[in-house]
Amino acid sequence: MARPTPLSGFPEWLPDGRIVEQHVLDTLRRVFELHGFGGIETRAVEPLDQLLRKGETSKEVYVLRRLQEEAGETEGASRGDKQLGLHFDLTVPFARYVLENAGHLAFPFKRYQIQKVWRGERPQDGRFREFTQADIDVVGAGELPYHYEVELPLVMAEALGALRDIGVPAVRVLVNNRRVAEGFYRGLGIDAVDEVLRQIDKLDKIGPEKVAALLVSEAGTTTEQAEACLALAAISGSDTGVVDRVRALASRHGVESDLLETGLGELGALIEAASVRAPGVVVADLKIARGLDYYTGSVYETVLVGHEQLGSICSGGRYDTLASDGANTYPGVGLSIGVSRLVSRLLSAGLVRATRSVPSAVVVAVTSEETRDASDAVASALRSRGVPVEVAPAAAKFGKQIRYADRRGIPFVWFPGRLEEDGTRSPDQVKDIRSGEQVDADPATWEPPAEDRFPRVVPAAG
Amino acid sequence: MARPTPLSGFPEWLPDGRIVEQHVLDTLRRVFELHGFGGIETRAVEPLDQLLRKGETSKEVYVLRRLQEEAGETEGASRGDKQLGLHFDLTVPFARYVLENAGHLAFPFKRYQIQKVWRGERPQDGRFREFTQADIDVVGAGELPYHYEVELPLVMAEALGALRDIGVPAVRVLVNNRRVAEGFYRGLGIDAVDEVLRQIDKLDKIGPEKVAALLVSEAGTTTEQAEACLALAAISGSDTGVVDRVRALASRHGVESDLLETGLGELGALIEAASVRAPGVVVADLKIARGLDYYTGSVYETVLVGHEQLGSICSGGRYDTLASDGANTYPGVGLSIGVSRLVSRLLSAGLVRATRSVPSAVVVAVTSEETRDASDAVASALRSRGVPVEVAPAAAKFGKQIRYADRRGIPFVWFPGRLEEDGTRSPDQVKDIRSGEQVDADPATWEPPAEDRFPRVVPAAG
Repeated sequence: MARPTPLSGFPEWLPDGRIVEQHVLDTLRRVFELHGFGGIETRAVEPLDQLLRKGETSKEVYVLRRLQEEAGETEGASRGDKQLGLHFDLTVPFARYVLENAGHLAFPFKRYQIQKVWRGERPQDGRFREFTQADIDVVGAGELPYHYEVELPLVMAEALGALRDIGVPAVRVLVNNRRVAEGFYRGLGIDAVDEVLRQIDKLDKIGPEKVAALLVSEAGTTTEQAEACLALAAISGSDTGVVDRVRALASRHGVESDLLETGLGELGALIEAASVRAPGVVVADLKIARGLDYYTGSVYETVLVGHEQLGSICSGGRYDTLASDGANTYPGVGLSIGVSRLVSRLLSAGLVRATRSVPSAVVVAVTSEETRDASDAVASALRSRGVPVEVAPAAAKFGKQIRYADRRGIPFVWFPGRLEEDGTRSPDQVKDIRSGEQVDADPATWEPPAEDRFPRVVPAAG
Repeated sequence: MARPTPLSGFPEWLPDGRIVEQHVLDTLRRVFELHGFGGIETRAVEPLDQLLRKGETSKEVYVLRRLQEEAGETEGASRGDKQLGLHFDLTVPFARYVLENAGHLAFPFKRYQIQKVWRGERPQDGRFREFTQADIDVVGAGELPYHYEVELPLVMAEALGALRDIGVPAVRVLVNNRRVAEGFYRGLGIDAVDEVLRQIDKLDKIGPEKVAALLVSEAGTTTEQAEACLALAAISGSDTGVVDRVRALASRHGVESDLLETGLGELGALIEAASVRAPGVVVADLKIARGLDYYTGSVYETVLVGHEQLGSICSGGRYDTLASDGANTYPGVGLSIGVSRLVSRLLSAGLVRATRSVPSAVVVAVTSEETRDASDAVASALRSRGVPVEVAPAAAKFGKQIRYADRRGIPFVWFPGRLEEDGTRSPDQVKDIRSGEQVDADPATWEPPAEDRFPRVVPAAG
């Protein structure tokens, strides 16, 4: 087998990169669980017809086929087999899981889900075709109180904030509300709400003048309506002054809308609660339009401060109908972190590093293969008190055994005592190979400094 | 959308089942890391030609196709795209990972890998088509000392043994050695070693008489050779007496073989070390034949004592050539736990249960929606000290809020103090809803009993 080359779009990390990713996942999981979110996993596949219910994503689905079928299996043998595809997000599978298990779940049901998803992007686009998402959602049976629309982005902000000590930049959560935009547009007399949102979404790319022209030509607005839409999109801020400015704008344009008022009430409550619980993190930004075509209330995007060009690393919103089986409707609100994109950025930009590439804090040296069992016993004693340890691969010269540790960033090498000529045993010793300090030590009681016990993930130096 | 039904072969757990699975995975990971194994993940897909290098598994592979291709994409656009399939184990991807990253890895390289694998079994077979494996392997560059063949099954025995307090039965690791079998057969004058192994593998199913007949008819042995093979297969035991019995048998049949001696030396060393480090766990069983056709040294199978009919839940062995790129050869030894099969058994046999179905130890009651922020502040204070907490979904009657906790198995409900008429504040109280005991409590200092902080996984009562 020739040396294989990476597959474009399928990222993999070296062991020290995986330590970084695992740390990120563990941190997210811990925060989600502290907020009462339970973990679930769903299968990787869904029936293709379910994956294709939203047309937009249809091109990105990987379809599965058993090789056996291809090899000429008769049609009868595979009859009844539904065509399956790999899930491209965790929302479609979660909605199906809720419907399938509704009788066994307690609502409102709060879950997190950390899994790979797959998108059949063209390899030449340089986008990930396999990546890990970390989602939280709350779903209700029949109804779901608004306060969850406040809670969920704050949980995500806390989870991402918990990564700041490893060097992840601060996050800013940008929020908007479907009801504000739709209420305002309809109050202006515009019916083509989704078309307006589609054009507003281009603001960052092409600027307000071109968007104004498109609003007139594509969404059929008047010039005055277009200007009002752009004025709304220009409003942003992290206090409830935002609400006042929208009201003033609406008043100037003679807009009266119950939907707008409902949306402003919600947006104001979110901003207010966020300013108490996570000051400066949540910003209302009324030009956020992505997702407003399918979310029904709040929408969220999250950027890394100073790395805004990376785009949103955590997005989501409120959907009045996450799932429905005809008899029952399940509204939900949730957000999803693109973990692979985040970790890939942390590693490629050199923002973080692991303090070593293996779990071991100690290598126990082997004096001779005949006394390997003595080294094994030391390792076992240390492990029984939770110290990660490995035993040297061979009874080589100690210098070589120390290099084995050094190459992996393992801080300590343990030398078992030897039987002296007078029949006594010399004491075991442990060496900190960073400082060179070597001291007597007892495997029944010795502990490494707390910061050396496990590999840590830390901001990369300058 | 009608209520969906489960897909045969794709197991999913309810939230409390997932707590059990997560506990199993966390425990395995902890033991692997204590032994210095670093975690890696590989992508879910491999080029189809790599997956099909071993013919046997070719029927079980799921092949991927982008839906886009199917929809009439021109051939040119997909040219250069390798055909991809989902991995069916973690060994093929690991071997590829080692070759691809050899220049960046330190050898011997010890890694664990916990991931889903997929096999395109026919759904009517009732077998898992998606399941989680937990693998450990050590791979060397050019050479790999024998002592790793002793270490790895003991690490697995320790990992599975760490699950005994949740009610997982004791494990027994059955070991055999390719060199012993091959050396003995060849010493008898048999060349069709793999064919003999194939027949010996049927012993448990069809018994020694039928196997004897098949050895003669299919493997071309004499009756006497067949009897000697069966006598070897009948030897088992957990001390080095096993080695003596094989030697005696060989001597009776005039077998002299360096390969046999090497194998017996290895097997004896494994049994001896295991009897010190994990008494009674490792048993030499010379009828173990599965895997001997591709492993080159030790082979391992693991059964749950009292649940032997479940088959092996953890298997593996030594391969002299895990991977090779022509210039370099990488020998390895590893074992793989079928986690889904194990967890499925634990749940379906009612052996274990989670103490609750959600992470939360506490529900903070909400007195009125206007004072939800006070409840949020209590939750935040408790979380800052690592207590998993959720806030009640609605300011319903306290009885209903207590039922919300009760339904999820959450042991504590917290009642924020109220503003009294005289302007003072009544103290917060926390109620253990199991005992009904309700006491004053301060969110800045209160802690739940250690055993209530997180959901635990425990043996299911009788």
